[in-house]
Amino acid sequence: MTPPGPDPGQGTEREPEPDDTTPPPTRRRPGGRTARIRTQVLDAVLAELGEHGFDGLTTDAVAARAGVHRTTVYRRWGDVGGLLADVLDAASDDDWQPPDTGSLEGDLAALNQEIQTALTAQPPIVTALIAASFRSEKAAHAQQRLWEGRYARCEIVVSRAVRRGELPPHTDARRLLIAATAPVYHHLVLLRTPPDPQLPGHAARTAALAAAAGAFAEPRSVSRS
Amino acid sequence: MTPPGPDPGQGTEREPEPDDTTPPPTRRRPGGRTARIRTQVLDAVLAELGEHGFDGLTTDAVAARAGVHRTTVYRRWGDVGGLLADVLDAASDDDWQPPDTGSLEGDLAALNQEIQTALTAQPPIVTALIAASFRSEKAAHAQQRLWEGRYARCEIVVSRAVRRGELPPHTDARRLLIAATAPVYHHLVLLRTPPDPQLPGHAARTAALAAAAGAFAEPRSVSRS
Repeated sequence: MTPPGPDPGQGTEREPEPDDTTPPPTRRRPGGRTARIRTQVLDAVLAELGEHGFDGLTTDAVAARAGVHRTTVYRRWGDVGGLLADVLDAASDDDWQPPDTGSLEGDLAALNQEIQTALTAQPPIVTALIAASFRSEKAAHAQQRLWEGRYARCEIVVSRAVRRGELPPHTDARRLLIAATAPVYHHLVLLRTPPDPQLPGHAARTAALAAAAGAFAEPRSVSRS
Repeated sequence: MTPPGPDPGQGTEREPEPDDTTPPPTRRRPGGRTARIRTQVLDAVLAELGEHGFDGLTTDAVAARAGVHRTTVYRRWGDVGGLLADVLDAASDDDWQPPDTGSLEGDLAALNQEIQTALTAQPPIVTALIAASFRSEKAAHAQQRLWEGRYARCEIVVSRAVRRGELPPHTDARRLLIAATAPVYHHLVLLRTPPDPQLPGHAARTAALAAAAGAFAEPRSVSRS
């Protein structure tokens, strides 16, 4: 269950298929052969990325590992950037929901904990995907779409807090969520400080205190109230 | 005047010297020939990075642009990672100080504005250096050192606020500074959202409100008070 960071591993368990000329096995995945090949190829991208990083990632190695023809990969994904973009788009296609702990600070702390876990996981798939987004425009746009989708899903954390009376009605959910999560990304992705077990909770508490002090009140709400 | 983000352009104005076998000109820079060659080479790195990005950066192109022998560059910097690391180390070697506006929120807003300006400048040197830190271990460590130095210099913003009575004495300066600046980096470097003129001020106000609510009080201060 990964949050604004992607969770590309979910729902992509690998099925053996040595070559895409092989007849489909009896037990088929939903979506049939095309979907099955996509799963194999994207799993292979993740495995190659985890083992070799972006610099070791090639469409040929992915095709070989997935057991599909090179031309299948070239035709459908084009290049490494196209493969990474599809990995990120596939990660969005899940039923992930933000934590529901009963309080704003609790939800934000649990969310930050998920982000910290994803960003410190081994092999470092999530950080490798973020790093790849500095190399490929296609991957960068897919990473943007993934984050946008994750933050949009997280807005329910704020609307629940509003319903509970923890926050004023016109609270800028996105600004609050960015304030809560940005320090975790900043430490682990940019500053590259060692993981601090207190960081997820601290950043959550900071955002919750700022929210209670009106830091995310929308200007409209001021004029309307 | 760039803040936790580097300002590699400062103090590296280029002097013409077509080849390092040329006798030194009459007006010499402090530090002599070695320092002059370093300036020329690091300027060339910045110019090449700004024009071609990391992927177009080669030691040969840097040597040619700087007008020095290739062997001089190889011997002293080794590779592109070594060149980038030295650019970042040179950026630390300045007299930059954080803004002093008379209030915590004002200082943080001015600091964030400097960061936003650096991260949206054209050519995008600062973001290219951050991107390069995902490609080269040497550059990554130098970027870490630069940020560490910048955040350390910024701690005076917090100690001034403590002296003015804006903050309790035992305030975790680093956590406050990270909370204030992280949203700007998160938006512009990772989420890649279009620059929002309100972002620097919003993030500053959020951190200042959280600070006033005790978000960055150190546990020691609680037990001591």
